[in-house]
Amino acid sequence: MTKSSAGKTMLNPFGVTMVEDYEHLYEEFGIQPFKPLLTQISNPSAAMRRGVIFGHRDFKRVLDAMKNREEFAVMSGIKPTGEFHLGTLMTAREVIYFQQQGGTAFYCIADIEAYEDNRISFERSQKYAVGNVADLLALGFDPKKGYIYQQSKEQRVKDLAIAFARGVTLATMKAIYGERHMGLYISALIQAGDILLPQLEDFGGPKPTVVPVGVDQDPHLRLTRDLAFKFRRRYNFIPPSSTYHKLIKALDGSPKMSKRDPMSYFTLEEKPGVISKKISNAFTGGKPTAEEQRRLGADPDVCPLYDLYLFHFFERDEDVAKLYTNECKGGKILCGEDKERLTKIVLDFLKEHQRKRRQYIDKAREILEVE
Amino acid sequence: MTKSSAGKTMLNPFGVTMVEDYEHLYEEFGIQPFKPLLTQISNPSAAMRRGVIFGHRDFKRVLDAMKNREEFAVMSGIKPTGEFHLGTLMTAREVIYFQQQGGTAFYCIADIEAYEDNRISFERSQKYAVGNVADLLALGFDPKKGYIYQQSKEQRVKDLAIAFARGVTLATMKAIYGERHMGLYISALIQAGDILLPQLEDFGGPKPTVVPVGVDQDPHLRLTRDLAFKFRRRYNFIPPSSTYHKLIKALDGSPKMSKRDPMSYFTLEEKPGVISKKISNAFTGGKPTAEEQRRLGADPDVCPLYDLYLFHFFERDEDVAKLYTNECKGGKILCGEDKERLTKIVLDFLKEHQRKRRQYIDKAREILEVE
Repeated sequence: MTKSSAGKTMLNPFGVTMVEDYEHLYEEFGIQPFKPLLTQISNPSAAMRRGVIFGHRDFKRVLDAMKNREEFAVMSGIKPTGEFHLGTLMTAREVIYFQQQGGTAFYCIADIEAYEDNRISFERSQKYAVGNVADLLALGFDPKKGYIYQQSKEQRVKDLAIAFARGVTLATMKAIYGERHMGLYISALIQAGDILLPQLEDFGGPKPTVVPVGVDQDPHLRLTRDLAFKFRRRYNFIPPSSTYHKLIKALDGSPKMSKRDPMSYFTLEEKPGVISKKISNAFTGGKPTAEEQRRLGADPDVCPLYDLYLFHFFERDEDVAKLYTNECKGGKILCGEDKERLTKIVLDFLKEHQRKRRQYIDKAREILEVE
Repeated sequence: MTKSSAGKTMLNPFGVTMVEDYEHLYEEFGIQPFKPLLTQISNPSAAMRRGVIFGHRDFKRVLDAMKNREEFAVMSGIKPTGEFHLGTLMTAREVIYFQQQGGTAFYCIADIEAYEDNRISFERSQKYAVGNVADLLALGFDPKKGYIYQQSKEQRVKDLAIAFARGVTLATMKAIYGERHMGLYISALIQAGDILLPQLEDFGGPKPTVVPVGVDQDPHLRLTRDLAFKFRRRYNFIPPSSTYHKLIKALDGSPKMSKRDPMSYFTLEEKPGVISKKISNAFTGGKPTAEEQRRLGADPDVCPLYDLYLFHFFERDEDVAKLYTNECKGGKILCGEDKERLTKIVLDFLKEHQRKRRQYIDKAREILEVE
């Protein structure tokens, strides 16, 4: 979220978005707070319980389908420009959560967006895609209850983009995405196709669909919801719902991890030595001296270590609460010790994950029809 | 061709283009005069011989291939928004001419453009397409030496559009087409795909390709030639060549026939009574009285009847020359008599054409895979 010269908040799905005040999004963009719905969900995900998922659009529709055991879909994906990282891990976990709650899961390998936005050739993105899908399967995605596809090979999403194009003025595109090349605009229309794909007759027709995304992706959702409305007569679309999660802080304490800065994040494929180094070099919310920290406590709200525990690496909510209140704010733990503990948890997780992942590589190649 | 406020000439492929001075196009757009090449062509088409084809880009490349009996392609198409009319007849004849000279002929049913630009549904355009293809076959197109396809079903042209998109800035699009909705821009990229389709490996790889079009379509050619250059490393494209024909005057004497005004043109499917009426109501270059016309002669240069003979309905060049100099300018024929003669020629042609066309409907359905 950046402030433009006119003082308005902007979400930028193709660049760096800084979010310092999530409350803002409720007023300015009409994103609804997620918390009031939490009590109605019988088995919420960790990200929901912990407030990592803080907002939504129209999630009630999906919630009702879950409650009434009616058909619904969950849709998200990855841009195959590299290995799985902590941001894609987040959405993958939400997709798998909704699949386990009974939703049909759609997972898109956004290779057209990788081509248009990142200039990654389709040949190169295909290599990353195999690893990405193996990660997804290792995390628990059930391919029998879902559909994994590459944009470049899925004609229906391109045809939806073509169908939608005449309903989008240049003014709309510029208002949402700024002045960009045609590739970016076409990517955006294809993403609208991805989000509405689960509602085509081939997949059983209109149904509530939830798209769990980082809040920086909201502009795509707004465009897609507009298109679902504009083309409702032809396709009978139900406007897609979304959940929004906060963005995990970069290891240097800045608002968002970025592929442009390798020290700001790590992938699920990195070597233990690199992980240790990145965590030990990370910014923290600690005090200058141990004495001061024991006396005054540290600040978890600015700390990427805390975010790592909160988003991914503590399994139990009690451990998160204890870390926040007691260990960190209460000065019971020093950042050095905390880094050691976190490194161990991360390395254990990655070791186990990489073991599973290797077993799924062949399955991933089969799903993507790679020879 | 319209003059913008800055005094520059503009060609508008999506609107009405008025061309009063073709010489202008040589200077302003870099279109080359066709005449100097004419003597090098062993068997020129009627439109070439009569100066209806007045300009080109890079036609020498195709001419050399023709001379040396090397591989080349011809590419054009129709927007399936109605029946064949005199404009589509013109390009169809050129496509067939180049096919008969040894070129592989590509003929595109531009149903995506019909959808984006004219809001014609794919279902509806499919119906027109069957008739359009039957017309093409009746005119002599040999499907064994060519490829007829619908844009909506030809994934390769969509994939080329997607590949090209990141090489086109919004500024370029606006400069060529003005501020339009996304559908028009995507159509333009898909047309670039159509023009370069003959050069894909699936069709034998790079080859000289000629696109015979009305001069109002030149903006598409310029965009496509730019893209052929930008993506030359990946595809090895040879820049496509083009020939430009003049636009046949509307029956009311205005510069271009328009579907918005049914009295300005006729289709190849119209009833004899309607044709007679349209021709008899046509504007001519005649004088107010018979006496004056016999004395001073009439003006073929402003006369749509003359254009009809010149473009389509006199088979022999001598008859055109005689009409221009002797009969019309020389005052030997009155416009009424001329209208009667023309009506008879047109009706004879259409009767024979429609008979052939009926025999090709099944073949057209087979080519388009229509049940």
